[in-house]
Amino acid sequence: MTRDVIPEQTPKDPTFEARVRESFGRQRHMATLGVTIARIAPGEVDLALPFDPRFCQQNGFLHAGAIASLADSANGYAASTLAPPDTDVLAVEFKINFLAPARGEGFVARGRVLRAGRSLTVCQADVFSTGRERALIATMLSTIIVRSVLGTAAGPG
Amino acid sequence: MTRDVIPEQTPKDPTFEARVRESFGRQRHMATLGVTIARIAPGEVDLALPFDPRFCQQNGFLHAGAIASLADSANGYAASTLAPPDTDVLAVEFKINFLAPARGEGFVARGRVLRAGRSLTVCQADVFSTGRERALIATMLSTIIVRSVLGTAAGPG
Amino acid sequence: MTRDVIPEQTPKDPTFEARVRESFGRQRHMATLGVTIARIAPGEVDLALPFDPRFCQQNGFLHAGAIASLADSANGYAASTLAPPDTDVLAVEFKINFLAPARGEGFVARGRVLRAGRSLTVCQADVFSTGRERALIATMLSTIIVRSVLGTAAGPG
Amino acid sequence: MTRDVIPEQTPKDPTFEARVRESFGRQRHMATLGVTIARIAPGEVDLALPFDPRFCQQNGFLHAGAIASLADSANGYAASTLAPPDTDVLAVEFKINFLAPARGEGFVARGRVLRAGRSLTVCQADVFSTGRERALIATMLSTIIVRSVLGTAAGPG
Repeated sequence: MTRDVIPEQTPKDPTFEARVRESFGRQRHMATLGVTIARIAPGEVDLALPFDPRFCQQNGFLHAGAIASLADSANGYAASTLAPPDTDVLAVEFKINFLAPARGEGFVARGRVLRAGRSLTVCQADVFSTGRERALIATMLSTIIVRSVLGTAAGPG
Repeated sequence: MTRDVIPEQTPKDPTFEARVRESFGRQRHMATLGVTIARIAPGEVDLALPFDPRFCQQNGFLHAGAIASLADSANGYAASTLAPPDTDVLAVEFKINFLAPARGEGFVARGRVLRAGRSLTVCQADVFSTGRERALIATMLSTIIVRSVLGTAAGPG
Repeated sequence: MTRDVIPEQTPKDPTFEARVRESFGRQRHMATLGVTIARIAPGEVDLALPFDPRFCQQNGFLHAGAIASLADSANGYAASTLAPPDTDVLAVEFKINFLAPARGEGFVARGRVLRAGRSLTVCQADVFSTGRERALIATMLSTIIVRSVLGTAAGPG
Repeated sequence: MTRDVIPEQTPKDPTFEARVRESFGRQRHMATLGVTIARIAPGEVDLALPFDPRFCQQNGFLHAGAIASLADSANGYAASTLAPPDTDVLAVEFKINFLAPARGEGFVARGRVLRAGRSLTVCQADVFSTGRERALIATMLSTIIVRSVLGTAAGPG
């Protein structure tokens, strides 16, 4: 009845870590926000974001959209670790609940695969504040499509 | 059976437009992304975002999180136009579906109130690409909490 | 900037109406709830549900899950009207906001296609109460996968 | 970085279990579906649903709306275990991802509180199939409002 019934996650591409790092290097939005990769494992990726007033909303907390950017990328790269070679991932949709104000020294999003299907992967990212006030500040459920980069497909499915 | 059954939206605060502009001016994330206010009306706010490679993801389209930032703020300010004086709005959660790749000269999100309750407001934002390829690229449903700024409340409800 | 930028919806299967009715006839959950088809058009399906105390929650309003059942099926059949022959539709995920209490003589859900892609279709259903108190009581965004029924595929993508 | 940072859940009402059972007894939709309470703990409630062809969709799997009914109630009662006396809970919105076909002897939904705020509680329900093919078949994130039953409030916030 706990999540240990999620099947073991076996990467289909032994070079998954290199592939994630290469794709991350092309994500200018991640660089702009100052996001770094904290951890890569089969079916799980942690991304870290330092607090930065440039990305705050009117009340001084980090903008909901900055937190969503972090969680969306963590889920996308978690999906990517289990995807076949020569594929790319694309967000079909996501939903995020905000559980506590986005304040602190920084934030870590842990993206995790719940289900890796033939074309669709479902992931969940938990976002934590780091520093003294460590708390679960948000959680995101994402549906992600895995597509061949060899073809000419465009658009989310 | 069409959405014309949504009741007329009457602002409770005649200075709603000034309040939205003042709050928007404090949103550094909006300034960082280059977002501007395109239109303010009772229950509706349009925000415009130019295409900018700094906010792109690995495939050259605007990052899903940048689109989500735009739509989240459009919904928040739409809610704000109908909120009482001396209140602030906060995203409780949102869900966004991506319908077409985020490419084009720019993007406009139209946030619209579907229901303005005593403490919770539900909004939907449609995001369109502008320029030659005009298309509905995303839609977001948001739950927003309206809180007094006179008290000391913190956190989403 | 309004939703009239949604492209015209042209059915790929001229027998779409018969196909929807045939599939609906096999949905025992719809029969159990007393749901009937009120309207079928390309990209849109209206389903009607009478109020029934057997499907109520603890406060006497119709259960959120009964409303979700209605809206999910309206979206699935809306997607089905635009799907190729020899396909079936399956809900990948949905999100529903409840806007007003589910009371009244009955309810109508209008499911509508926002985007019909090669494998994924995104729909929105608005649920209205009927009778004297006509109101928008809920709205649902759904992601639906369209799959061939000729193969042996199982599971949501 | 795991969910053990969720704070301990302490009930505000020592009679929470009796309150959940009393409310459940008034949910005719639960009785109609054949749902029973499998477990009540502070911040967690498990509900069980036997497979029943009356609630199936066109493909012979349990209807997405029946699974959603089960998960929505599990989350609502999980929220209820931590709510103050003389309150009732109401679903504001939920989002559910379907991860595997809803087949098997039956299903159990475990609803769990992620955050219990002053007025809003966020819960997640994992739904498992029981019998030989035990699998995580769906997960739901819910936003729930807690309201006094002593006042005259109506509608979701």
